[in-house]
Amino acid sequence: MKKVITFGEIMLRLSPKGYLKLMQADNFDVSYAGAEANVSVSLANFGLDTAFVTKLPKNDVTKVCLATLRKYGVDVDKIVYGGDRIGVYYLERGASQRPSKVIYDRKYSSVSMSSREDYDWDKIFEDAQWFHFTGITAALSDNMPEILEDACRAAKAKGITISCDLNYRKNLWSKEKAREVMSHLVQYVDVLIGNEEDAADSLGMYPADSDVIAGKLNHEGYASLARQISEKFGVKHVAFTLRTSYSASDNGWAGILYTGGKSYISKNYNIHLVDRVGGGDSFGAGLIYALIQQMEPQDVIEFAVAASCLKQTIEYDFNLSTVDDVKRLMSGDGSGRVQR
Amino acid sequence: MKKVITFGEIMLRLSPKGYLKLMQADNFDVSYAGAEANVSVSLANFGLDTAFVTKLPKNDVTKVCLATLRKYGVDVDKIVYGGDRIGVYYLERGASQRPSKVIYDRKYSSVSMSSREDYDWDKIFEDAQWFHFTGITAALSDNMPEILEDACRAAKAKGITISCDLNYRKNLWSKEKAREVMSHLVQYVDVLIGNEEDAADSLGMYPADSDVIAGKLNHEGYASLARQISEKFGVKHVAFTLRTSYSASDNGWAGILYTGGKSYISKNYNIHLVDRVGGGDSFGAGLIYALIQQMEPQDVIEFAVAASCLKQTIEYDFNLSTVDDVKRLMSGDGSGRVQR
Amino acid sequence: MKKVITFGEIMLRLSPKGYLKLMQADNFDVSYAGAEANVSVSLANFGLDTAFVTKLPKNDVTKVCLATLRKYGVDVDKIVYGGDRIGVYYLERGASQRPSKVIYDRKYSSVSMSSREDYDWDKIFEDAQWFHFTGITAALSDNMPEILEDACRAAKAKGITISCDLNYRKNLWSKEKAREVMSHLVQYVDVLIGNEEDAADSLGMYPADSDVIAGKLNHEGYASLARQISEKFGVKHVAFTLRTSYSASDNGWAGILYTGGKSYISKNYNIHLVDRVGGGDSFGAGLIYALIQQMEPQDVIEFAVAASCLKQTIEYDFNLSTVDDVKRLMSGDGSGRVQR
Amino acid sequence: MKKVITFGEIMLRLSPKGYLKLMQADNFDVSYAGAEANVSVSLANFGLDTAFVTKLPKNDVTKVCLATLRKYGVDVDKIVYGGDRIGVYYLERGASQRPSKVIYDRKYSSVSMSSREDYDWDKIFEDAQWFHFTGITAALSDNMPEILEDACRAAKAKGITISCDLNYRKNLWSKEKAREVMSHLVQYVDVLIGNEEDAADSLGMYPADSDVIAGKLNHEGYASLARQISEKFGVKHVAFTLRTSYSASDNGWAGILYTGGKSYISKNYNIHLVDRVGGGDSFGAGLIYALIQQMEPQDVIEFAVAASCLKQTIEYDFNLSTVDDVKRLMSGDGSGRVQR
Amino acid sequence: MKKVITFGEIMLRLSPKGYLKLMQADNFDVSYAGAEANVSVSLANFGLDTAFVTKLPKNDVTKVCLATLRKYGVDVDKIVYGGDRIGVYYLERGASQRPSKVIYDRKYSSVSMSSREDYDWDKIFEDAQWFHFTGITAALSDNMPEILEDACRAAKAKGITISCDLNYRKNLWSKEKAREVMSHLVQYVDVLIGNEEDAADSLGMYPADSDVIAGKLNHEGYASLARQISEKFGVKHVAFTLRTSYSASDNGWAGILYTGGKSYISKNYNIHLVDRVGGGDSFGAGLIYALIQQMEPQDVIEFAVAASCLKQTIEYDFNLSTVDDVKRLMSGDGSGRVQR
Amino acid sequence: MKKVITFGEIMLRLSPKGYLKLMQADNFDVSYAGAEANVSVSLANFGLDTAFVTKLPKNDVTKVCLATLRKYGVDVDKIVYGGDRIGVYYLERGASQRPSKVIYDRKYSSVSMSSREDYDWDKIFEDAQWFHFTGITAALSDNMPEILEDACRAAKAKGITISCDLNYRKNLWSKEKAREVMSHLVQYVDVLIGNEEDAADSLGMYPADSDVIAGKLNHEGYASLARQISEKFGVKHVAFTLRTSYSASDNGWAGILYTGGKSYISKNYNIHLVDRVGGGDSFGAGLIYALIQQMEPQDVIEFAVAASCLKQTIEYDFNLSTVDDVKRLMSGDGSGRVQR
Repeated sequence: MKKVITFGEIMLRLSPKGYLKLMQADNFDVSYAGAEANVSVSLANFGLDTAFVTKLPKNDVTKVCLATLRKYGVDVDKIVYGGDRIGVYYLERGASQRPSKVIYDRKYSSVSMSSREDYDWDKIFEDAQWFHFTGITAALSDNMPEILEDACRAAKAKGITISCDLNYRKNLWSKEKAREVMSHLVQYVDVLIGNEEDAADSLGMYPADSDVIAGKLNHEGYASLARQISEKFGVKHVAFTLRTSYSASDNGWAGILYTGGKSYISKNYNIHLVDRVGGGDSFGAGLIYALIQQMEPQDVIEFAVAASCLKQTIEYDFNLSTVDDVKRLMSGDGSGRVQR
Repeated sequence: MKKVITFGEIMLRLSPKGYLKLMQADNFDVSYAGAEANVSVSLANFGLDTAFVTKLPKNDVTKVCLATLRKYGVDVDKIVYGGDRIGVYYLERGASQRPSKVIYDRKYSSVSMSSREDYDWDKIFEDAQWFHFTGITAALSDNMPEILEDACRAAKAKGITISCDLNYRKNLWSKEKAREVMSHLVQYVDVLIGNEEDAADSLGMYPADSDVIAGKLNHEGYASLARQISEKFGVKHVAFTLRTSYSASDNGWAGILYTGGKSYISKNYNIHLVDRVGGGDSFGAGLIYALIQQMEPQDVIEFAVAASCLKQTIEYDFNLSTVDDVKRLMSGDGSGRVQR
Repeated sequence: MKKVITFGEIMLRLSPKGYLKLMQADNFDVSYAGAEANVSVSLANFGLDTAFVTKLPKNDVTKVCLATLRKYGVDVDKIVYGGDRIGVYYLERGASQRPSKVIYDRKYSSVSMSSREDYDWDKIFEDAQWFHFTGITAALSDNMPEILEDACRAAKAKGITISCDLNYRKNLWSKEKAREVMSHLVQYVDVLIGNEEDAADSLGMYPADSDVIAGKLNHEGYASLARQISEKFGVKHVAFTLRTSYSASDNGWAGILYTGGKSYISKNYNIHLVDRVGGGDSFGAGLIYALIQQMEPQDVIEFAVAASCLKQTIEYDFNLSTVDDVKRLMSGDGSGRVQR
Repeated sequence: MKKVITFGEIMLRLSPKGYLKLMQADNFDVSYAGAEANVSVSLANFGLDTAFVTKLPKNDVTKVCLATLRKYGVDVDKIVYGGDRIGVYYLERGASQRPSKVIYDRKYSSVSMSSREDYDWDKIFEDAQWFHFTGITAALSDNMPEILEDACRAAKAKGITISCDLNYRKNLWSKEKAREVMSHLVQYVDVLIGNEEDAADSLGMYPADSDVIAGKLNHEGYASLARQISEKFGVKHVAFTLRTSYSASDNGWAGILYTGGKSYISKNYNIHLVDRVGGGDSFGAGLIYALIQQMEPQDVIEFAVAASCLKQTIEYDFNLSTVDDVKRLMSGDGSGRVQR
Repeated sequence: MKKVITFGEIMLRLSPKGYLKLMQADNFDVSYAGAEANVSVSLANFGLDTAFVTKLPKNDVTKVCLATLRKYGVDVDKIVYGGDRIGVYYLERGASQRPSKVIYDRKYSSVSMSSREDYDWDKIFEDAQWFHFTGITAALSDNMPEILEDACRAAKAKGITISCDLNYRKNLWSKEKAREVMSHLVQYVDVLIGNEEDAADSLGMYPADSDVIAGKLNHEGYASLARQISEKFGVKHVAFTLRTSYSASDNGWAGILYTGGKSYISKNYNIHLVDRVGGGDSFGAGLIYALIQQMEPQDVIEFAVAASCLKQTIEYDFNLSTVDDVKRLMSGDGSGRVQR
Repeated sequence: MKKVITFGEIMLRLSPKGYLKLMQADNFDVSYAGAEANVSVSLANFGLDTAFVTKLPKNDVTKVCLATLRKYGVDVDKIVYGGDRIGVYYLERGASQRPSKVIYDRKYSSVSMSSREDYDWDKIFEDAQWFHFTGITAALSDNMPEILEDACRAAKAKGITISCDLNYRKNLWSKEKAREVMSHLVQYVDVLIGNEEDAADSLGMYPADSDVIAGKLNHEGYASLARQISEKFGVKHVAFTLRTSYSASDNGWAGILYTGGKSYISKNYNIHLVDRVGGGDSFGAGLIYALIQQMEPQDVIEFAVAASCLKQTIEYDFNLSTVDDVKRLMSGDGSGRVQR
């Protein structure tokens, strides 16, 4: 089986137990997370071969990071080494009206300070069928866009499918910079993924009539936006997650896929959240899996949405759901009855 | 006060903290649980004298198990010793659309491999007023039906009331086997308890028009089913729990009692679940207590449902609610205001 | 900046993790809490200078208590020392239909056994702008009313604003005693705070047509009650919290302020509770802050309610929200979207 | 089998995990402990019937306390109820040169404020063979000496053996008061127990040439002291623990028994301490057990010392060792090889 | 690099935190362990390719087990599936004079009930250089000796080196049975490993003048014993661990290797134990690594002893030390100075 | 009371519980630490006024850091804000022959990237009596030596005493660089502190005949070295800690002070280590306190050594001992007897 290659940053995630604020915690749960690594872990749980590419420093924390990826079935042999540090992010989990807070300490990480010479894309892609990256990686440093363009060109040359999750992060770059870079990179992309706001932030393109803060989503507007993106950039599949944030404890969750000139809207799930971080990444992974399996368009979006619904009932960033778990939910069993 | 005797298996329950999946946990919360032991613990909390009968191996884990039962006020003096092991079950708690999962490792347990000679029912019942067992115990091994029939005959001979919770477990036996065994044993039973599906699975008798997965329950159908069971097997009281599984986090919960030719339906509780495992057992305990107290039929079912509603807001399988706690909820105070 | 002085008792709060009952816990989370100390901590988080006054024994537990207050920015230099003990309270957290339970072990605490000679109010108030106390403190012992009257007189003499939260506790005194004492003390008060039941319990004055247990609140009734209190006792601002207890997991939360002859009702929040203890205290702190900032009346009540809504999403008694956190919620963003 | 009755106070013990200081802990391990309760638990583990007598308030903390005693096999049916509180003690565990610290909050406990009318000694002793108390109980309040004298007289009248552990606590009473009270009570005592300093503190009688702080113990001096006590008060058996405190982590541990006109010194154990609190109580329990079993004098002291050596390798105050465990160590196997 | 294949059982290890007894714990640390799996993990940490062979049931606990092995770099692709259960063992950690206790619940495990048909040794060994098993595996069931003989024959046919750790377990079989089976299997073995008692228990051959319980070891006796074994069974390398059990907290640790007609004794380490379980397995892994690296005989035994010394300072059964860690200790740096 | 000002870096310390390796932990204990911050916390515990100066980024992690310092009584008002990050260090605790490991992730921290303009030393020192820094701070970046020289000049101009702990860190700079910088800065220093190796590493000056790895220390050599340093650089007091590293669990600990032309050697403590990190810093704090108190030279070194002995029995980097605690140990009571 050919591999799905993902490229980006992996960080330590440090989070107080339960709903404690940072100020109250003398103990952090440690996990490892990053937008593309999350995708690889989810794909490995779906039974696909997948490798995660990044640059990490040579130290004992990196060893734990590698062991964790290995534990979840991700190939770590394509990772390169060097630089000073592995990024860290602190997550304070919110509840009800109190939002979760993320404090990033990812600057100067090995991957963000890496250069074009660090990656031999022809070698990396030699047994690959798919390449996935996100807008976060593009934003990590000034030479990341070039590195990603190297990767995209190498992938294209080998006929590898390319997917990109726009994933705009306002603390990493400005909208202007994001739009300049992402509009360029999207030209290589076959499958484009985003949340309700990403197209606006990263591409400067807006759905009509949605107000995310107020929890109002306009499915028609997103269908039309997806079509425009598809046409403007020649992207084959465009998919959006549609989150309705009732509170930090309860969210609505759905998705829309535009492909072959038509839009497909998924069923909506009302999720009592365990951990919403990584929800978008697990949607991307579900989409990639469903497309590789050549599911029907409606099934593709239903699979991606069900997968990412389940992720948000699981602690930490990784979606540990199996294909069976996702299909059970897709088939309508969200009753949560005990499985014995 | 004469004792309520329960007979069955008690296991170690090993569960990751909070909503962690087994894969994420390097630490399990340990508790002790089993359908009939759960009933005994609940009855002890209600102030009744109760003894739990089982067979356990002679080792230090058994010592902890005995101490735990003693802690909660259950008489352990009738337990017999021998065999190889105490069963274990792993519980991964679900949330929202993600179901809880139970992995049983109960095969070859001392009680499941015990034989008729292990139990001296005349002695066991010498100070008893009530005998309770469940379909799980009947399913543990091929000689369990015989052992249970011994027990039922001895109980009958002493005029002891017999209650049985059908509790069908598909991983322990087939429906065919269950129906054969349970149809026979039910003939000894005065009080029959089940959930929405048990009558179908264990007796091959169905309510009309209910779809458990879709969360639709038909109270009329259950009333009629209870009447049929009562009439067919000569059971005096038939009671069902009626669970509406909205999700792994939120459930509706009610019950129905058929007795004296009439049906009594309880109020329905919408429960934000802490731990639903043991819910059915606490219903059985509530029913037994209310019947022993000779409450009015409507109060019997309200007490049983309120008790088991409270159980599902308590961690682990044991219902630690007192009679006062249950009566407060029965009387309408489910507001959860702080008691100071 | 002149200080807000609060006076009362601070206790150790011992609570089992999560939703465990006391019976199930071999480990308690430790925090420090008390109605007035909670107000001081919240005010310090809002950036005000504040000192907490109490009497504590000289021992290592007191040292931890002082360090904790210092950590959260509260001035502890006005505390006096002596007596035998620091009070303790045990909190068993409820869920859904199961109420939380508080077991107090606060009798004989140093502050409850303190006398008028222990406090030099002129010195305590020398850099103060505001004095806050609650009905709990008044109830601690027979000489507390006198001590509080000393404090109120000294405050009045210095032109210091006085606020009082009625906070009736039935296990500390009878309604008769409370009404006698509080009716007297309220004459010194500029800002009176209470929950739905406090006016009835502490002052013998009732809103029309509310049934707290049944979750029905009558805003008109409370507006009229506030006006009556204001007029009867000459209190400038009267504010009530209005809690709708759907269950131990979900509450509605709003407030009403009567000032300048008019009533102002806040928006209502449906809170998925993390920890409701300290909710009323954080309302008081929000009110004090908003009044000191001379906000408009509607903003005053909105700020107080939003602040105390956030508190109930935070573990333990202290409200660790900042002014920015509160204003974001006031401005309508209760969506709980992740802040990165 | 006739019961061993112990009478005294049981408290909550709150201790930070591991070697954390109180100041560093936001979480306390909870256990239950008290000099006489510790003796009862150890005796129950040795297979004796034993009941603990005390007075406790009616609340949920008491329920946990009772359940804990029941778990460890102690009869709680003779406990009386009333009063305000159950005492608490905070334990900060030391290490190496840093001593452990105990902060008591036991004043005003139900038992310390109990009166002679609370206890019906004839009833309490109706199925008893032995009565045990300590100097701590005598020190709890001014009416405790009378209560204890009531108990001793009732015991004597029934021919029950009486043991007393001197257990001087300087924060409960002065040496003068202790000597007055204990010299009187010791006249009823058959078996007197103490540590190196207790005879001096409680009876004003000194061994020659020992310097406890410097870790020097003079076995001859203790033999002579025991003989003097035996002769002066007519005590049949006098036993001392002999601790050499090298540090908070490592102690020497031995004992001496004077009986029948002769002294018996045990072997010495060098213990790498897990938890030394309760060491003396477990020595008392070992002594009582060995005397009831009518072991030879040398075996009596060896059993008591080995038992209490094992206790100090076990967390919390209770000695959970069995007779087999103790005998294995007595027989010379202190190698700590894994038992499989 | 050719693989080291190990074959045996892997179990869940459940252990209370710190020094708690089973009776005191409501929470178990979970790890995975087994004599041969421990060897594989240690070898993977030394950088060798290694695969662990066993039979496991198809369930979610097995998934965690596989993920754990993968995390530590062990190839799990040769594992076969089926049967009912994965074994469990409970470990209560001792301290000082209190021994650690192991309670096994491994009966009926999938591997112990496996048959010759389950394993295709030619396939398993196709990329192998070494095969390792222990006497524990031989003792698991009556058909294990045959299975192991199949494996040994297949290994011999491929010129694969065979090592065996005698590892006698008295609760699995009698000495008579062990001697019969092991004497036969040892004929295939190139490298034989044991502790001080194994040769006596498993082969009926004794060193002169050692008394393990009393902590006296006779190096000469072991040298002579190793020579006899080597000569009798034609084993090329015979190695013993020499443990001096001062207590459950402190042990002496050394080893002896007989090879090429000469004995080599290692330096002795006095270990302040963190976790001694798995010490012998890590010695075996060290020996295998050093022999594969073709170290000099003295270095072989020094490496094995230093490796297993480090293991006993690490929690759980796996030795996570690297070759660098071991060589640093071999070179004399056991000072424990902080590595920054 | 005039303040002791310390200047340097404070980091998050992340450490697995107990003796777990990083690879085994999914949870880190969080504390805050840094050579100079550790000194300030210890001095605050001794009752001195002290302020810690550093540069920190503006974020929620910094808020926790400030709250922690405030909790322990350190003035944080002189801290400046800006830059990107707060450093992190990972600590894996060793035991016995296994060394502790520190992995630093401190590069690019706000303080290390700060510049001369960030600090207004005249303002910082306006109420100061003492200035303390370490060689670690000097090594943080290329402009740190200049910043420190600014500070030293400003301090000298105000007649403030200056102390410096050489604290060589090989991963921060080379010995050559360290010697160049430190030889220059030491000219401003009144009190010079170091461990056995610092003088060699930082100043290129060696004691005769010591072998630190082998645990051999030559007191004469250190006395002579201290004299040479004092004479060469005009330092008034020179003090060394003398650690004998028996293992990661047990260390010898002593100190030597050269002042007024004479050497004073302290008593030696054999410490069973709880946490040796921060030992040197607590020695520095003890020395500063004793010198400020104008103790006799022998008392100065005894106080510093006893203080730092106690630190090593306390978790985390901060010495939480009081002056009473230290004096008790100085006076000879290291018996670790329980303080009640």
